[in-house]
Amino acid sequence: MVLKDYIKSRQELVDSYLKKYFSSEFLPERLYESVTYSLFAGGKRIRPVLAIASFEACGGKAEDILPQASAIELIHTYSLIHDDLPAMDDDAMRRGKPTNHKVFGEAIAILAGDALLTEAFVMFTEGERFSPHAVKEAIRILADAAGPRGMVGGQAEDILSERKEPDPRTVHFIHTHKTGALICASLRIAPVLAESSHEIIESLGMYGEKVGLAFQIIDDILDVTGDSDSLGKKTGADSEKGKMTYPAIYGIERSKAAAIELFEEALSAIEFMGDGAAPLRSIAKYLVQRTR
Amino acid sequence: MVLKDYIKSRQELVDSYLKKYFSSEFLPERLYESVTYSLFAGGKRIRPVLAIASFEACGGKAEDILPQASAIELIHTYSLIHDDLPAMDDDAMRRGKPTNHKVFGEAIAILAGDALLTEAFVMFTEGERFSPHAVKEAIRILADAAGPRGMVGGQAEDILSERKEPDPRTVHFIHTHKTGALICASLRIAPVLAESSHEIIESLGMYGEKVGLAFQIIDDILDVTGDSDSLGKKTGADSEKGKMTYPAIYGIERSKAAAIELFEEALSAIEFMGDGAAPLRSIAKYLVQRTR
Repeated sequence: MVLKDYIKSRQELVDSYLKKYFSSEFLPERLYESVTYSLFAGGKRIRPVLAIASFEACGGKAEDILPQASAIELIHTYSLIHDDLPAMDDDAMRRGKPTNHKVFGEAIAILAGDALLTEAFVMFTEGERFSPHAVKEAIRILADAAGPRGMVGGQAEDILSERKEPDPRTVHFIHTHKTGALICASLRIAPVLAESSHEIIESLGMYGEKVGLAFQIIDDILDVTGDSDSLGKKTGADSEKGKMTYPAIYGIERSKAAAIELFEEALSAIEFMGDGAAPLRSIAKYLVQRTR
Repeated sequence: MVLKDYIKSRQELVDSYLKKYFSSEFLPERLYESVTYSLFAGGKRIRPVLAIASFEACGGKAEDILPQASAIELIHTYSLIHDDLPAMDDDAMRRGKPTNHKVFGEAIAILAGDALLTEAFVMFTEGERFSPHAVKEAIRILADAAGPRGMVGGQAEDILSERKEPDPRTVHFIHTHKTGALICASLRIAPVLAESSHEIIESLGMYGEKVGLAFQIIDDILDVTGDSDSLGKKTGADSEKGKMTYPAIYGIERSKAAAIELFEEALSAIEFMGDGAAPLRSIAKYLVQRTR
């Protein structure tokens, strides 16, 4: 299967699961609108697609992991809404559209983020496909990766480090936590749910760690070299805000080289896995070569 | 056992569990300080104490449910931090201390809330005391009560209804969702974890629903009649902000009568339960008669 088709078909599965899940509205209407506005704003569903690919590499079927894979997208979407807030990164555009708080106001944007984060744990417990033990373990991995020891810690350090002298240790902390942790969790959750061997869980986790970091380095590079139209958001924002990024420390070329090295390490972590891991290999390549 | 001693001993169990849990710091330090500032700001631990009392009424031991009971306090604390934000209720004082964003700034306050909400689900999966099936079910109840169909929905309606003509349906929606849902969940989670009968789960849930609503009505009344020193926050704030409250619709006397009626309904829901439910009966009385 061509990679583009693979990704598209998995994205569609996630989108149709999310559409169906959120077809029953909740009150107040304005909160529902705010939540669905950001959730269906054209996200690429990278984390759910990675979780599905990881699950398929373990011999599972995409349909079976949709609630858990889609729950990760809820967490990712909440993090974008909160990151864009005036008190945080103060961004006006996201995926070519006004950010949530620009449309719904700050209060509802904060609550829409809270709603998505909390609902992720409802969604995660949907279905009876997996053993409750595996679900409990996967919830622990996901919450740990999204919380203060993971994504939230990375975001806090990112905000606190603005306009400070860039240093390699801090930028590594920010990237592995802010972006890396949730991507890594997306990869680990699948073999945990599939009750795969310890070796497979660790290998897919390692792949996730490397790909997650590479993904954020590419993101930093695109903020310098990318085209704002195709990215759907303003470029040059990182340097304007004095963000601690890879290019700010290492320059574009060394940052690119670091991403490619991480990509190769990701591949070697799952080398021993069979053809089932082919989509993961292609996705890694795609994420490192992407231009938006 | 005297009620005061009962509550105090359970509060102490929760406090010492939380202290121990948060004794291992996370980075950045500023986020850790912000999280622990609000978590140890003198909260009365009402929700965890209710969860423990519910568990004891089902024949369980307080110590066994500490992770799950304490996780509810994390969710409650996050909701207070976010509610106090300038974009929300814009409160400067809470429990006699400056609110989180007054001390740490808005960005870190938002992230501290996010951190507490997420960490609650890590904490909830601590320990091996309960069957994973029961833990999964309890997580679902908790997340559902805290999310858009529960607490977050109530908070959104509360914000959106400010300065509107008060109406009974809206104020009932706000109170049952904003405060009632999480209190109700605190009561339901314990029998689910204890794998009690359906009848007991529903009865404790009913008690929780009634007590939760009564609790919020009393809160509204205290905002009008209470003493700001003993409450640790400004009184009269609801009417200043044009909040939709019970006293605003029904006046003080009818609101008091409604709280007492709910208290009696709460007692009758658990009437068939034995002496183990005695603390729940006393706590309900205490919550309705409280002056702060």
